[in-house]
Amino acid sequence: MAPQLKKIPGSKESLKEVMDFFQPDFLKIETTLKKHFASHISFVNQVSSHILFSGGKRLRPLLTVCAARLCDYSNDDIYDLSAVPEYLHAASLLHDDVVDAGEMRRGKTPAYKIWGNSAAVLVGDFLYARAIELASRFEDVRIAREISKTVALMSEGEIIQLLHAKVPSFDEKTYFDVIFRKTAALISTSCKIGALMANGSMDEIEALSNYGLFIGQAFQMVDDVLDYTADTSEFGKVIGTDLAEGKLTLPIVVALDRASKPDRDKLMTLLCQGYASTTDFKWVKELLMETGGLRYTIKKAKKLIDQACDSLSIFPDSKIKTNMKMLAQYVLERRK
Amino acid sequence: MAPQLKKIPGSKESLKEVMDFFQPDFLKIETTLKKHFASHISFVNQVSSHILFSGGKRLRPLLTVCAARLCDYSNDDIYDLSAVPEYLHAASLLHDDVVDAGEMRRGKTPAYKIWGNSAAVLVGDFLYARAIELASRFEDVRIAREISKTVALMSEGEIIQLLHAKVPSFDEKTYFDVIFRKTAALISTSCKIGALMANGSMDEIEALSNYGLFIGQAFQMVDDVLDYTADTSEFGKVIGTDLAEGKLTLPIVVALDRASKPDRDKLMTLLCQGYASTTDFKWVKELLMETGGLRYTIKKAKKLIDQACDSLSIFPDSKIKTNMKMLAQYVLERRK
Repeated sequence: MAPQLKKIPGSKESLKEVMDFFQPDFLKIETTLKKHFASHISFVNQVSSHILFSGGKRLRPLLTVCAARLCDYSNDDIYDLSAVPEYLHAASLLHDDVVDAGEMRRGKTPAYKIWGNSAAVLVGDFLYARAIELASRFEDVRIAREISKTVALMSEGEIIQLLHAKVPSFDEKTYFDVIFRKTAALISTSCKIGALMANGSMDEIEALSNYGLFIGQAFQMVDDVLDYTADTSEFGKVIGTDLAEGKLTLPIVVALDRASKPDRDKLMTLLCQGYASTTDFKWVKELLMETGGLRYTIKKAKKLIDQACDSLSIFPDSKIKTNMKMLAQYVLERRK
Repeated sequence: MAPQLKKIPGSKESLKEVMDFFQPDFLKIETTLKKHFASHISFVNQVSSHILFSGGKRLRPLLTVCAARLCDYSNDDIYDLSAVPEYLHAASLLHDDVVDAGEMRRGKTPAYKIWGNSAAVLVGDFLYARAIELASRFEDVRIAREISKTVALMSEGEIIQLLHAKVPSFDEKTYFDVIFRKTAALISTSCKIGALMANGSMDEIEALSNYGLFIGQAFQMVDDVLDYTADTSEFGKVIGTDLAEGKLTLPIVVALDRASKPDRDKLMTLLCQGYASTTDFKWVKELLMETGGLRYTIKKAKKLIDQACDSLSIFPDSKIKTNMKMLAQYVLERRK
């Protein structure tokens, strides 16, 4: 049995251990991200760098590398492929900030606030294109297809969210539909393309897609909880923005379902007003705790992480498998 | 010799004849465009339809079909491929209108003015993704690669234009750099992917890429002339917008080079003020005629169309080749 299993999953020591294990990968990922993103227009590089090198967790590229390695792939060109989901992620952040008019991104002023909407839209387009170009270098048309399908899903996810903002009919099913598209699809695809590159079997590809899918859903659910509970300086985003933007996340969906009629009405009013005062925020946070909205979300996320780990059961035990399970735990325990 | 050659190129009869010749293709292109763009989110379809089915010329898909046919490809799946450049074009129009804050598009109110910037950005992303997904269905990774390279170039072209707006150092070289990226690259790629699908020889692929490249440059140059000379009701865009937006197109570049110091200074002031009155517009149009800026642009465009036709010389004479030459002439003579 690999030594990591002795640690309590999610504990500080185990997080340090899993990060140490992946440290060489993180270094190679960072180098590769710097290698492929460049345009020969320095302005494009300036905007791209702002979003690409501002403390991203690199979860998506790491998952591509892990998935390939679990399928016994050891060629270093996997790092090139791993840049693809991170570029897509960066592109989507540039566009999402324009769409949501976000105030902070990865602890910094978002690109659209510095260089304007036009620059954020166009550099986002450039990064999408660069990602797909990179994906199509690998002579495997399945990879390009997965990537483009994922981009279509991601934009649909944002659109559904836009259309449903402040609509009380938003239920748990719609919530999962949105987070599948806007977050989990790309995290699942990050794993899937690693498995495809490694020429994994159908079962292996499916297992790794599912592992990513479950992790991705849990990741977004934790994000939605952190938006009410995190410390802004750690989180890298302004907390309370979901409330100010009227986003119907799972904790809110649960609270709307369980709260008394007057509380429900007040919550809907707050979600619709387009901003949130500190008093409003505190009141909503209290309601999310009282109704169990936060607890319910965390519980569901935990279950998904268990499912993610179970998905890997078709693979024989190995150091990488153990660390992938611990990585899943980290998604649950993260504070930013 | 094919009968079309007896007609004077660019005359009304010859235009009618070339349109009649391609009529069956236009019908199949229209059907195919309706087949692939759909999202199951009706709002996405509504916004996509607004831009896709509003009287586009369908030049790009037609070129894909022509290029393949010239390389003796007769399978109907070429129509599926031909939707790819039209979707890309529609996506870029959605984003460009956000970037340029355009007032009219294809004779209609642009999408961002009806549904907001967010919807235009996200549905643009969706159409980009759908185009690349479609391109990656053809099991030829070269096609996906060409498409993604082109999208990167297109966004770079818009960015260069954005950066250079109102900068007097903008010269003819920069102008050609911009129009290569923002227009000619996609028109060239429309031809190239047709040749790739047809498994054309290297020489054939190159000849057709060049044909598209020359046509694409001429197309944009004619557009830049029409922005000063067209009839708005025919053109489908508000004329004079390039002046109001301070766009440094070739007629302007030439006028800035040739005008007297006071006229040059006045022109720069008008370009920088962010709007254009009717008097301003008339004065600039007069200057473009006096300095020969419009004439120079048309002359260069004509030369490019000749080069486009010459590029086809490696192919044996045929009805399709004759009509492709006449299509090139149409690009020059168009009024919208």
